Amino acid sequence: MRKIEHLGIAVKDLSKSNELFKKLLGKSNYKEEEVSGEGVLTSFFQVGDTKIELLEATRDDSPIAKYLEKKSEGIHHIAFDVEDIYAEVERLKAEGFEILNETPKSGADNKLVVFLHPKSTNGVLVELCQEKNN
Amino acid sequence: MRKIEHLGIAVKDLSKSNELFKKLLGKSNYKEEEVSGEGVLTSFFQVGDTKIELLEATRDDSPIAKYLEKKSEGIHHIAFDVEDIYAEVERLKAEGFEILNETPKSGADNKLVVFLHPKSTNGVLVELCQEKNN
Repeated sequence: MRKIEHLGIAVKDLSKSNELFKKLLGKSNYKEEEVSGEGVLTSFFQVGDTKIELLEATRDDSPIAKYLEKKSEGIHHIAFDVEDIYAEVERLKAEGFEILNETPKSGADNKLVVFLHPKSTNGVLVELCQEKNN
Repeated sequence: MRKIEHLGIAVKDLSKSNELFKKLLGKSNYKEEEVSGEGVLTSFFQVGDTKIELLEATRDDSPIAKYLEKKSEGIHHIAFDVEDIYAEVERLKAEGFEILNETPKSGADNKLVVFLHPKSTNGVLVELCQEKNN
């Protein structure tokens, strides 16, 4: 776990939330990107050496749509930057954490990503991410 | 907003969560500190240039005890490091954000802190913090 790569925040209306976070942070987002596999449209703001990622669902079966149904807008996950995602998955499994997808999948921002089940991490949805091709 | 200073995570049992986050992050906390005004015992882990702050309630009327009653363990707030907390409060009020305590109060880790109401920030409890005497 080298650093917090980003914080994911679930929102209902990305354009409204882009305006809100622009006012809050005093700067605009630097990109938007759709992750079709996850059914989300993302928007990234740089803050120091980490990022805030706003997440809007693009379809009803998106994990973000389900999250908003059960809970409400708010912080959805913490993503940690890791050097070797395969080794980290093995290390965390051995420590007793429940891995949601043992095979890393493609996330936003050119990353391989793995999620841990919040029930094994104090209610926090944890993402591991590693830059592809590094 | 210069950077994310820390992420606050509400926990029921600090000693158990200290062990859990030690396994997750691969390192121990570097300090514990009680903030009696807030009724919390905190534990800090350094991750890159930001921190994870675990928060356990020390009494029933602590904001963390109330949070755990209504919700469950999980990410409680995002704290941003600011250069001038008084100027930031004025800027954010003018932008329409609802400030919970306009007069900064003493937080953990030698900080002056102000909270914004989550209803004005997409469900996210936002803390502004500034190092005292800088």
